[in-house]
Amino acid sequence: MNRGKFIALEGGEGTGKSTQSRLLAAALQEGGIDVVVTREPGGTPGAEAIRSLLLDPPGDGWGPRAEALLFAAARSDHVEKTILPSLDAGKWVVCDRFLDSSRAYQGGAGGVGDEVVLALHTIGSKGLRPDLTLLVQVPPARVAARLAERDGDTSDAIGGRDASYHADVAASFSLFVEQEPGQFAVIDGDAAPEEVHKRIMAAIAPLLDTPA
Amino acid sequence: MNRGKFIALEGGEGTGKSTQSRLLAAALQEGGIDVVVTREPGGTPGAEAIRSLLLDPPGDGWGPRAEALLFAAARSDHVEKTILPSLDAGKWVVCDRFLDSSRAYQGGAGGVGDEVVLALHTIGSKGLRPDLTLLVQVPPARVAARLAERDGDTSDAIGGRDASYHADVAASFSLFVEQEPGQFAVIDGDAAPEEVHKRIMAAIAPLLDTPA
Repeated sequence: MNRGKFIALEGGEGTGKSTQSRLLAAALQEGGIDVVVTREPGGTPGAEAIRSLLLDPPGDGWGPRAEALLFAAARSDHVEKTILPSLDAGKWVVCDRFLDSSRAYQGGAGGVGDEVVLALHTIGSKGLRPDLTLLVQVPPARVAARLAERDGDTSDAIGGRDASYHADVAASFSLFVEQEPGQFAVIDGDAAPEEVHKRIMAAIAPLLDTPA
Repeated sequence: MNRGKFIALEGGEGTGKSTQSRLLAAALQEGGIDVVVTREPGGTPGAEAIRSLLLDPPGDGWGPRAEALLFAAARSDHVEKTILPSLDAGKWVVCDRFLDSSRAYQGGAGGVGDEVVLALHTIGSKGLRPDLTLLVQVPPARVAARLAERDGDTSDAIGGRDASYHADVAASFSLFVEQEPGQFAVIDGDAAPEEVHKRIMAAIAPLLDTPA
């Protein structure tokens, strides 16, 4: 059995990652690849319970270090029980957010520091990295318009943070690409979903070409 | 305002730590000391929610690393919001379990390793240590008899682990005392609660003598 490929989609709020994760998974399935589409925080019963604590915190909210520890705990459960067993079984895993969200949100914008987030990832998940990370970027003004179009109040304890926090998140993601260009494909997400999907399929083509 | 003292009670299941925490807090209060009595995991709304996830896990239970991360997250919230503000306000804090339980359970018995648990504590809680840790020890046969006397099924996902796990916990606690004897007072808990309480009051006397 050949090991599956692990693709993460990253980016700020409202960049279309969830939609693109589903489109990507469907396209891979159509191509005969067995795919698990999942998300973070979440992807297991335990990690989904932690997700609820993170997005709708009891009390007056988590400090940045407790938040980073909770993300690492959820990821540890997700990697151990969903991601690694799927990859080992030859399935591809498409994950809506992974480690780089913790690096950008808690590490960068939250001030915990990249080295701390990476240390937690080594402890919790043996440092597992995706084969490719798709960073979906959309101009902030366009994101604001998209979020305003969503029905009802969909903001949560993290997505609802101020513009300065989200600017720090975006700057952190850009820095990661500069530091490790080979790990990322930057996707211009400022287009119709089908067009963005085509860009993603082009970006992952090298993974498909790899001898299975 | 003089900083308060921080006393942790540690030990295995059924050693009487909760009862002794309450007796100690009441005695200190009677002596005119303002005391906060608290517990781990827990002590804040967020940490109590994590406690529920730890003792009654969703799905099929946490791996040892996710469990260690969850304890560190709960402790970070507890230290930041309850313990440090209380100590800074001049109150004493009496805590039923603290860091050394994570070292003994997840680090020792769970196999995560002491250095990892200490690293998580540095990240989450800046390495805060109690002024004194009371290790309450009771022979295993006596503990088994006490636990059998408790009404109903009070075992949880951690307390309910097998005898070998709990033997490793006890061995870890003993090792910590050997390594840092100045940090611990070992209390023989194999006696009536009032007698054990007297032993604890004798052990903390040096803290009371410290000029305030």
